[in-house]
Amino acid sequence: MITLAVDCMGGDHGPRVTLAACRQFLDSHPDARLLLVGQPDALAGFAHERASVVPASEVVGMDDPIEMALRRKKDSSMRIAIQQVKDGAAAAAVSAGNTGALMAISRYLLKTLDGIDRPAIAPQLPNAKGEATTVLDLGANVDCSAEHLLQFAVMGSALVSALNNEEAPSVGLLNIGEEQIKGSEVIKRAGELLRAAGKAGHLNFYGNVEGNDIFKGTTQVVVCDGFVGNVALKSSEGVASMISNALKQEFKRNIFTKMAAIVAYPVLTALMRRVDHRRYNGAALLGLRGLVFKSHGSADALAFEHALKRAYDAARNNLLDRVRTRISAALPLLLAAQSESGPSAP
Amino acid sequence: MITLAVDCMGGDHGPRVTLAACRQFLDSHPDARLLLVGQPDALAGFAHERASVVPASEVVGMDDPIEMALRRKKDSSMRIAIQQVKDGAAAAAVSAGNTGALMAISRYLLKTLDGIDRPAIAPQLPNAKGEATTVLDLGANVDCSAEHLLQFAVMGSALVSALNNEEAPSVGLLNIGEEQIKGSEVIKRAGELLRAAGKAGHLNFYGNVEGNDIFKGTTQVVVCDGFVGNVALKSSEGVASMISNALKQEFKRNIFTKMAAIVAYPVLTALMRRVDHRRYNGAALLGLRGLVFKSHGSADALAFEHALKRAYDAARNNLLDRVRTRISAALPLLLAAQSESGPSAP
Repeated sequence: MITLAVDCMGGDHGPRVTLAACRQFLDSHPDARLLLVGQPDALAGFAHERASVVPASEVVGMDDPIEMALRRKKDSSMRIAIQQVKDGAAAAAVSAGNTGALMAISRYLLKTLDGIDRPAIAPQLPNAKGEATTVLDLGANVDCSAEHLLQFAVMGSALVSALNNEEAPSVGLLNIGEEQIKGSEVIKRAGELLRAAGKAGHLNFYGNVEGNDIFKGTTQVVVCDGFVGNVALKSSEGVASMISNALKQEFKRNIFTKMAAIVAYPVLTALMRRVDHRRYNGAALLGLRGLVFKSHGSADALAFEHALKRAYDAARNNLLDRVRTRISAALPLLLAAQSESGPSAP
Repeated sequence: MITLAVDCMGGDHGPRVTLAACRQFLDSHPDARLLLVGQPDALAGFAHERASVVPASEVVGMDDPIEMALRRKKDSSMRIAIQQVKDGAAAAAVSAGNTGALMAISRYLLKTLDGIDRPAIAPQLPNAKGEATTVLDLGANVDCSAEHLLQFAVMGSALVSALNNEEAPSVGLLNIGEEQIKGSEVIKRAGELLRAAGKAGHLNFYGNVEGNDIFKGTTQVVVCDGFVGNVALKSSEGVASMISNALKQEFKRNIFTKMAAIVAYPVLTALMRRVDHRRYNGAALLGLRGLVFKSHGSADALAFEHALKRAYDAARNNLLDRVRTRISAALPLLLAAQSESGPSAP
């Protein structure tokens, strides 16, 4: 039996979406149990033999400053959900709430692994090879140092290695050109650290990649600052939804195009399923001493259910121990990078 | 008669693409003249009564370091093309060559306008409103300061204002959330400068926008660091080409889907035309004392022809004077920001 703690109040839609997803998830996972964390009134309508409510009186707002979420809302559904992981009551926590708050509370309660300064969020995005590219950080880590980027590379490599049972997944550094001379000062220095790690056999470092390589699947892992990663992800979502809306508009233009739409319906459905970003919802927070998964804030029930599945798979496959083992192996490398540049700001 | 100087050797494909584009362009623009800059041997096959060859013995490679392009290749086609603008022989120069080299050589030869530290590249991307979003910088300006971002805002606003005859185009600051507290230190400081400029009536500042807002068309201008802008653009191109390839694959799957493709053909063609990024090729380098346009390095003939058209339209509409006037008006604002933070690194 695998138990997950669900922050039922988080996200743009709250319990309306999270509870619908929980029901679907429980129906398709007979060995799963859910701890539904939130305001009891809001969760009162939900009854399932493998679900129980864990009360939490407060809710972290999507716009709440991190400080407020961390210091003033000590009985928030987000915090209580993570506390279940810390206490060993749940194998993983899932939340669609405020990313910055989730990172800060997770880090405060669970602590980071040795050698890791900041947890990172590592979603898997679909690529043209029909596989997934793991991109990190897509959390709220802005102003990352070169040492942080090296830590992200080790964590991302450990994640893919654990998920795919692969010895050395390829890692690319997101940059504005393939050449080593390209990029900001931090990126150039990160390139040096990653090349050194590659030469020493700690990483399968491919070199620089560009934004389009995420979707080409040039490397299995792409490493970037949280600011850049967020912009890349949101821009991609923006262009994908622009194209899908344009497709709908063109098919609705007149009676002939509407007839064409009927004929093309199965093809369009297959396409939409293939590029549906809801199927890729649910990203691991890496580098913590516990499993936490982040869902997109705007997730609908289908998307939130996918985040629950990811957390469930990770718990069942013992992801935490596998990532921890990998990071321990790379610890001398991470500590060497830190001491070379002085202590890294957390 | 409007004369453009064309770097015929630049880009991934060189004269094969640039000359084909030049012929198309000349045929559709009877009042245009082209100065074809490049190695005479490579351009020998091209003859047109409104085109003449300006010889240049060297070529800037796509991977050449900026220093080499600037200091050692003084007879490059890129440099000679820009020299034509400086000498008044051409109204604008167009190149598909190495972005960093184009920025550096343009700045060295043409100099920046008063109050502007660095030129910026400002492409116009299609948005869901059927209009264009001007995003800058998408050049090679990495490690931008808050003052640089303010300059980009003023330049972008001036460009859209001149192109659309609009008094105060809306400007957004690319960030990872709408709230003022979000983002890196530089972005937060840039937000302060932009808000102050907005309150003083120098800019129509909307506030923070996110990556998807570029394609929603939330604001007419989006301001960002060159690194972030490049990643956003390349990621968007990556996802767009992944979707369009998936669409082709799904329609080719079997005999039924192939028949559906025939029925849906006119709709798909209309869609492809709508999202075809080649139609948006050609971005102004802003902030210089002369007009230079950058084409995508991988442009085909159709795309390069669009870049020529943009440069032609800009020259005909007297874009340079109009941008210069706008920037002069904002000069006190720009100088105040610079002096507040000490002299800004170029």
